[in-house]
Amino acid sequence: MEIIRAIGAMREVAGRARANGQRIGFVPTMGWLHEGHTSLIGLARECTDLVVVSIFVNPTQFGPEEDFERYPRDLERDAVLAREAGCDVLFVPDGGEMYPEGYATYVYVEGLSDLLCGERRPGHFRGVATVVAKLLNIVQPQCAVFGQKDAQQSVIIRRMVKDLDMDVEIVIGPTVREKNGVAVSSRNMYLSGDERVQASALYRSLVTAKKMIEAGERDVAAIVAAMRQMIESQPAARVDYISIVDSETLKEVTRLDGEVLIALAVWFGKARLIDNMVFTIENKKGKG
Amino acid sequence: MEIIRAIGAMREVAGRARANGQRIGFVPTMGWLHEGHTSLIGLARECTDLVVVSIFVNPTQFGPEEDFERYPRDLERDAVLAREAGCDVLFVPDGGEMYPEGYATYVYVEGLSDLLCGERRPGHFRGVATVVAKLLNIVQPQCAVFGQKDAQQSVIIRRMVKDLDMDVEIVIGPTVREKNGVAVSSRNMYLSGDERVQASALYRSLVTAKKMIEAGERDVAAIVAAMRQMIESQPAARVDYISIVDSETLKEVTRLDGEVLIALAVWFGKARLIDNMVFTIENKKGKG
Repeated sequence: MEIIRAIGAMREVAGRARANGQRIGFVPTMGWLHEGHTSLIGLARECTDLVVVSIFVNPTQFGPEEDFERYPRDLERDAVLAREAGCDVLFVPDGGEMYPEGYATYVYVEGLSDLLCGERRPGHFRGVATVVAKLLNIVQPQCAVFGQKDAQQSVIIRRMVKDLDMDVEIVIGPTVREKNGVAVSSRNMYLSGDERVQASALYRSLVTAKKMIEAGERDVAAIVAAMRQMIESQPAARVDYISIVDSETLKEVTRLDGEVLIALAVWFGKARLIDNMVFTIENKKGKG
Repeated sequence: MEIIRAIGAMREVAGRARANGQRIGFVPTMGWLHEGHTSLIGLARECTDLVVVSIFVNPTQFGPEEDFERYPRDLERDAVLAREAGCDVLFVPDGGEMYPEGYATYVYVEGLSDLLCGERRPGHFRGVATVVAKLLNIVQPQCAVFGQKDAQQSVIIRRMVKDLDMDVEIVIGPTVREKNGVAVSSRNMYLSGDERVQASALYRSLVTAKKMIEAGERDVAAIVAAMRQMIESQPAARVDYISIVDSETLKEVTRLDGEVLIALAVWFGKARLIDNMVFTIENKKGKG
């Protein structure tokens, strides 16, 4: 596995690979790799010849009060995990080269970026879209892999790639969970042992929603209320939002029909955890 | 010369050309081609193997009160001129395919987009940056050619390409002028015969600025005042702005030093004409 730091060098390796007819698969990350990331690297490995993983804690997607400074970083550890997972090139760009003096250009996906997490984290998805556009232009992959755990991010990246006519296939890998159901996330390292136990309520609330829907429940408010009660019974939990939205427009739905996303964000101490599930609901004719 | 209308077909032709080792040169236009455009096509011809010209009157760069509807369009005429100038592929995308339902993504170059023409035309340069990003992603040129007449656009596109790590060289072709000095522009067709004569004052005012600077004048206000007087002596002229700015940041300068851009916009009847000149001013040491 090669480690590349300069944008020009990364571009050259990618250009050479493409000229040789190799397919490039790309997994952008902020490092502190976990099983979620390694599963995405595995997916990239399956469908391409050269797997590039980037590690870049992107400053433009953090708010001024957020955890940019204390976000966990450990390149040595990440390099081992990436290599073992099947990474060929680890791209670790420098902040100064990514955002040099005079930097001024941002990519913004209107509407989608202002809902759910975007409403609570102004500018976050503008930073995400911008850095992903930059990385795709540098790495030139045929295929880029993102995790379903960041559902809103996936919807926004798909929209951006389609809208800006970027020639890359976006693949979404399933959420990887710990044994107790907690979605694996770099930010889980902020959790105390007790908080980690309590955090399993997020997954349980999504499973409860699933059961309610399967049993015929179609009342959005009733489902959200049941989920909220389940989560708030955990003393450390502070619900940021629980929303049932259209899986493409991310707008809140008033009735359950078609593909919906149940998404939530909950604070446990210093950690803001997110989780979600997608449901396809087919209502009987006449009712729908 | 081939005429292509579908994005997918254009992408395919470009991909095949690149796979065959051809260099693609690209000239994006809004049609109603004139000698300014054909000179840019000539420049693209010089340094590449396959010259693509796009014709697309881009709705997102027009304000609600602007001339999108009445902007001149004549594909048959344009096709002849493009072919004669050396165009290999004329790309004429459809508005519905460029901005389908649900379209949401915009590229914005902060700061630069809000000055000069951007101050008078809110959203204009957002539309320009967005459509150019899209076209570059579709046409995949190694080299794209823009005209110095649209000086602010050139600065913004250069900034965007650098910031978003787009792998394309931006070439700026010199302004082409009519015999009386008027910069050629599709919008000149809005001018009456008399207005066209009066419009030559724009170029004369820039030449006057040049002479003043060469004679040692360093007072920004004095140069602008002389230009304004010269232009306002034309009865049909209504000055929008005359500004002397840093050629890279586009911020107004208080003293003449280094590379400066003198840019102006003036209304003649229904036509808003722009023009500019770049000056490199070397002041003696001690004074600078």
